[in-house]
Amino acid sequence: MITPAAAEIDLNADLGEGFGRWTLTDDEALLSVVTSANVACGFHAGDPSIMRRVCELAAERGVRIGAQVAYRDLAGFGRRAMDVPAGELAAEVAYQIGALDVFARAAGSAVSYVKPHGALYNRTVHDAEQAAAVVAGVRLAAGPAGLPVLGLPGSLLLAAAGEAGLAGVPEAFADRAYTPVGTLVPRSEPGAVLHDPDAVVARAVRMAAGGAVAAADGSTVRVTARSLCLHGDTPGAADLARRVRAALCAAGVAVGAFA
Amino acid sequence: MITPAAAEIDLNADLGEGFGRWTLTDDEALLSVVTSANVACGFHAGDPSIMRRVCELAAERGVRIGAQVAYRDLAGFGRRAMDVPAGELAAEVAYQIGALDVFARAAGSAVSYVKPHGALYNRTVHDAEQAAAVVAGVRLAAGPAGLPVLGLPGSLLLAAAGEAGLAGVPEAFADRAYTPVGTLVPRSEPGAVLHDPDAVVARAVRMAAGGAVAAADGSTVRVTARSLCLHGDTPGAADLARRVRAALCAAGVAVGAFA
Amino acid sequence: MITPAAAEIDLNADLGEGFGRWTLTDDEALLSVVTSANVACGFHAGDPSIMRRVCELAAERGVRIGAQVAYRDLAGFGRRAMDVPAGELAAEVAYQIGALDVFARAAGSAVSYVKPHGALYNRTVHDAEQAAAVVAGVRLAAGPAGLPVLGLPGSLLLAAAGEAGLAGVPEAFADRAYTPVGTLVPRSEPGAVLHDPDAVVARAVRMAAGGAVAAADGSTVRVTARSLCLHGDTPGAADLARRVRAALCAAGVAVGAFA
Amino acid sequence: MITPAAAEIDLNADLGEGFGRWTLTDDEALLSVVTSANVACGFHAGDPSIMRRVCELAAERGVRIGAQVAYRDLAGFGRRAMDVPAGELAAEVAYQIGALDVFARAAGSAVSYVKPHGALYNRTVHDAEQAAAVVAGVRLAAGPAGLPVLGLPGSLLLAAAGEAGLAGVPEAFADRAYTPVGTLVPRSEPGAVLHDPDAVVARAVRMAAGGAVAAADGSTVRVTARSLCLHGDTPGAADLARRVRAALCAAGVAVGAFA
Repeated sequence: MITPAAAEIDLNADLGEGFGRWTLTDDEALLSVVTSANVACGFHAGDPSIMRRVCELAAERGVRIGAQVAYRDLAGFGRRAMDVPAGELAAEVAYQIGALDVFARAAGSAVSYVKPHGALYNRTVHDAEQAAAVVAGVRLAAGPAGLPVLGLPGSLLLAAAGEAGLAGVPEAFADRAYTPVGTLVPRSEPGAVLHDPDAVVARAVRMAAGGAVAAADGSTVRVTARSLCLHGDTPGAADLARRVRAALCAAGVAVGAFA
Repeated sequence: MITPAAAEIDLNADLGEGFGRWTLTDDEALLSVVTSANVACGFHAGDPSIMRRVCELAAERGVRIGAQVAYRDLAGFGRRAMDVPAGELAAEVAYQIGALDVFARAAGSAVSYVKPHGALYNRTVHDAEQAAAVVAGVRLAAGPAGLPVLGLPGSLLLAAAGEAGLAGVPEAFADRAYTPVGTLVPRSEPGAVLHDPDAVVARAVRMAAGGAVAAADGSTVRVTARSLCLHGDTPGAADLARRVRAALCAAGVAVGAFA
Repeated sequence: MITPAAAEIDLNADLGEGFGRWTLTDDEALLSVVTSANVACGFHAGDPSIMRRVCELAAERGVRIGAQVAYRDLAGFGRRAMDVPAGELAAEVAYQIGALDVFARAAGSAVSYVKPHGALYNRTVHDAEQAAAVVAGVRLAAGPAGLPVLGLPGSLLLAAAGEAGLAGVPEAFADRAYTPVGTLVPRSEPGAVLHDPDAVVARAVRMAAGGAVAAADGSTVRVTARSLCLHGDTPGAADLARRVRAALCAAGVAVGAFA
Repeated sequence: MITPAAAEIDLNADLGEGFGRWTLTDDEALLSVVTSANVACGFHAGDPSIMRRVCELAAERGVRIGAQVAYRDLAGFGRRAMDVPAGELAAEVAYQIGALDVFARAAGSAVSYVKPHGALYNRTVHDAEQAAAVVAGVRLAAGPAGLPVLGLPGSLLLAAAGEAGLAGVPEAFADRAYTPVGTLVPRSEPGAVLHDPDAVVARAVRMAAGGAVAAADGSTVRVTARSLCLHGDTPGAADLARRVRAALCAAGVAVGAFA
C-alpha cells in the first residue's frame, strides 16, 4: 500500500517543438493535462510564432511556462552533444530564456523555470563545465532573483544550480527504465523506454507517491522527484498524459506546479 | 551661417554585426563615439556572445542600447526583402527584442529603442502591413510602456509607431544622397553613397543643426532628424564617426541620446 | 466523352519535405504512385539523410528524381518570396542540384529535372530576373546537356528555360482552381484549393486527357500539361494520389515520366 | 644540411571561409601560392556564391580543388565537436562534396580530394566511428573511383580511408608545435601555435625535405607529409604563404599538388 506523499507532484512536458511548417507536439491537448510546459525556444525546435501561441495557451490554462533551452541544432533536434565553450553556452542559454520571456509576459505570465533539452540535458548530468555554464546562463537571464532549474536527481546540473543559489527541481520519468542506483538506462539499451501504458501509469503513481519502482535488473529503486516528465512527442502522448493525471488523482496524489 | 538647433542630436550606429568566427563592425571604437548602439540580435548578424559583449561595453560607456531587428536571413545579412506574413514578423521582432534585453539588463541597462535593419528598414518605409507588424512586435515585447522606434522621416514605420502610441524618432544619413523631396537615393543608383569624408562631416553638421543640404539634383533639401546614423561596417568607419562627433561639438551642436 | 491524348501523363509530387526530427510527406506511399519525385534539397526542407533515403526509394521503384529547389528559408518552408540577387540565386539553385545529385547517383539514378518550390515557383511565373536566375543555376549545375525544368504553362520560367535551350515541361494542378485564362487562383482567395476528392480525380482525368475543366467563374478552360502535380503534404495525400492514378488508368490515359 | 626529398610537396590552405556579408580568408592572394584549395562547402563557412567564385579562381590558376567538409555549425565555425550519428554524418559529408563539385565542374575542374575541417578533423584523428563515417560519405559521393582524403599522419581517418581503398594523404603544419611522438600539441596549451614567421618558414622547408624538426620538449621529431597546410585565416597569412613557397623553391623542393 502506498501512502501518498504530502507534497504535490508537478507534471511537465516538452511543448512547442514544431518549427515553421512542421509540427510535433500536440500542444493544446497536453496543455490541458500538464502543470508545467517546457517550451522550446528556437534552438532545437520552436519558432517565434509557435512560442507565442504556446505561451498564450499556457497562460490561459494556468500552466506554468518554462524555458526548454538547447544546443543550437535544428538539424539534430538538439540531440547531438556539442562541445560548446562555457561562455558561449551560457550566452546561448540566456538568449533563449530572454526570447521566450517576451511571449510569456505578453500572455500575462513569465518564464518561471528552466530545463535543458536533449543532449544538453544528458550532458549536464555528468559534465561539470557545461552544467555550470547552463546555470550561469540562467543567472545571466534571471538576475538576482534567479529561476528554478529542472533536472535529474543527482545530476551535476542540480548540484551547480544549488551552488549558485538556484532551486533545483528533481524530476522522474515514468516511461523510462532506471538502473538500481537510480540513473536512467541509456536509450541505446533494450528496454530503456517503457511502451506499456498501464505500466507507465502505475509507475507514475508510485513515483509521485514516493514509492519504489522496479529497476531494470528486477531490484527496486526509489526515485525522488518533485515533477514527472511526460513525453509529448509520441503518438498517444496526450492520452497517456490524461491517464497518468487521472490515476494520480484517483490515488490521492495532488497535482500542481512546484513552488 | 547655421544656427545650431536647440535640441541635441543623437548618433547611432549598427554594432555587433559579426557572427561566430566572423567580425564586421569595430564595436569598441564606435562605442566611444556614438550615443545609441543598434545591436544586431541574431537574425541577420549577431550571436549571443557578441550581443553580451556589446551590451557590456555599451553599458560601461553609457551608450544607449537599441534592438536592431531584421529578417531571419544570415546568408543575406538581412538585405533581401522577404514576404514574411504579418503575424510571423511581429513575433520575430518581439523574439529579437527579448533576446537582446537579457544581455542589456545583465549589463545594467535595457533595450531602450528599436530600429529595423536592412531590407526590413527599407520595406517598412512604404509597406504598411510590414510597418504595422514591426510596431506590433515592439508592442508585444515592450508592453504598455512601449519603446521608441527609429526610422526614416515620412516612413510608414514612423507613422505606424505614432498610431500605436510609440515614439517615432526620425533619423538622417550624412553619407547618403537625398532626393529633392527628402527620400534616400536608392543604393542602386550612382552617387547614392557619399565617400568624401569632408563632405560627410559637413553634411552631418548641417543636418544636425537643422540646415538644408544639397539634394542629388543640386537643389536643397531640409532633412529633419533627431538622430544621425553613422555606418559602422566600412573601413575607416570609426575614424569618420570621430570626425563627425568632433565637428558637431565644434559647431556647438550638443550630442546626446534621444529621450 | 474524352478522347485520351496520345501522350503519356507524368505524375509528380513534392517529397522528402521533412527536416531532422520532423516529417511531412508520406514518401514511401507516394513513391508507389508517382512517376516523378520532386525531392527537397535542404533549403526549405530536406536534410542529407532524408535526401539519401528518398533517392534510394525512388531509384528502387523506378521513379524519376527531380531537384525541388527553393529559397534558403527553413523557417518559412520556402513560402516567403525573397529578393535574392540573380547571381546568388543561380548559385543557390546549382548548389541544391549538386547536393541532391550525389544521392541520386549513389542510388544508381541521377537528378533528371528541376522544379522550383513554393515562393520561388510562384515568383518565377512573372519575375523575369528570378526566372532567368533559376535557369542559369540549372545551366551551371547541369552543363551543356542541361536538364528539363518543370513549371506552369505560360510562366516566364518556362520561357527562360526555352531561351536557354532547356526543355520546359508544363504541369497542371488537379486540386487547384483556375482562372478563365488558365492561371491559378491565388491561395489567398476562397475556393483556390479543391478539397473534394471526387472532383480532384475527375479533373485530373480531364486535364490528362487534354480536355477542358471548369474555371473558377464557371467558364471552361483548357490546361495543357505534360505532368500533373499531386500534393504530398496533406492528410490523405497518398490515398488521393492512388485514386488519381487508378482513374487515369481506367480512362485509358498512360502514366509515365516525361522524356 | 637538408637533402631535398625526391617527391614534391603540396601546399594546401582553407579557402572560401566567408559567409554572406562576412569574409575571412584572402582567397585571391592564397590561390596564387597554394597548389590545393580546401574550399568550405557551406556547413561551417562558405556560401554558394563564394564557392562558385573560389572554384573559378582556383581553376584559372590551376589550383586543385578539395572539399573542406565540416559539421553543420555556422555559429561555431565547425570548431565544436558534435556527436553526429554515423549515418547522418556520412550523408552530410556527401552532401557537401556534391554541392561543391557543381561549382568545380562548372569552372572546368572537379573536386579532387576531401579534407575534414576543425572539430571534425580533430575528432577523426582518434574517433573510429566518425572517421569511418567521413570515409563512407566520400565513398557515397565519389563512387567506385573514390577521392583522396587529406589528414594527419597516424590518424584513424587516414587508416579508415586506406581500409576503404581511398588514398590517404598525410599533411603537416609548419606553424604548429609537435609532441615527441609526432602528434599536434593541442591549441589549448601554450606554444601550440608558432607565431614567428622565420621559424615557420624554416620548419616548412625541413618538413617538406623530410628532415626532423624540434618537438615541443626540445627533442626532434620527423613528420612525414605529402602536403603542408598553410593557415589562411590569420593576418599576414598570404605573405607567410608566399615566403614559405619561395623558401621551398630556394631549397630545391618542388612544389606541386599530390597525384
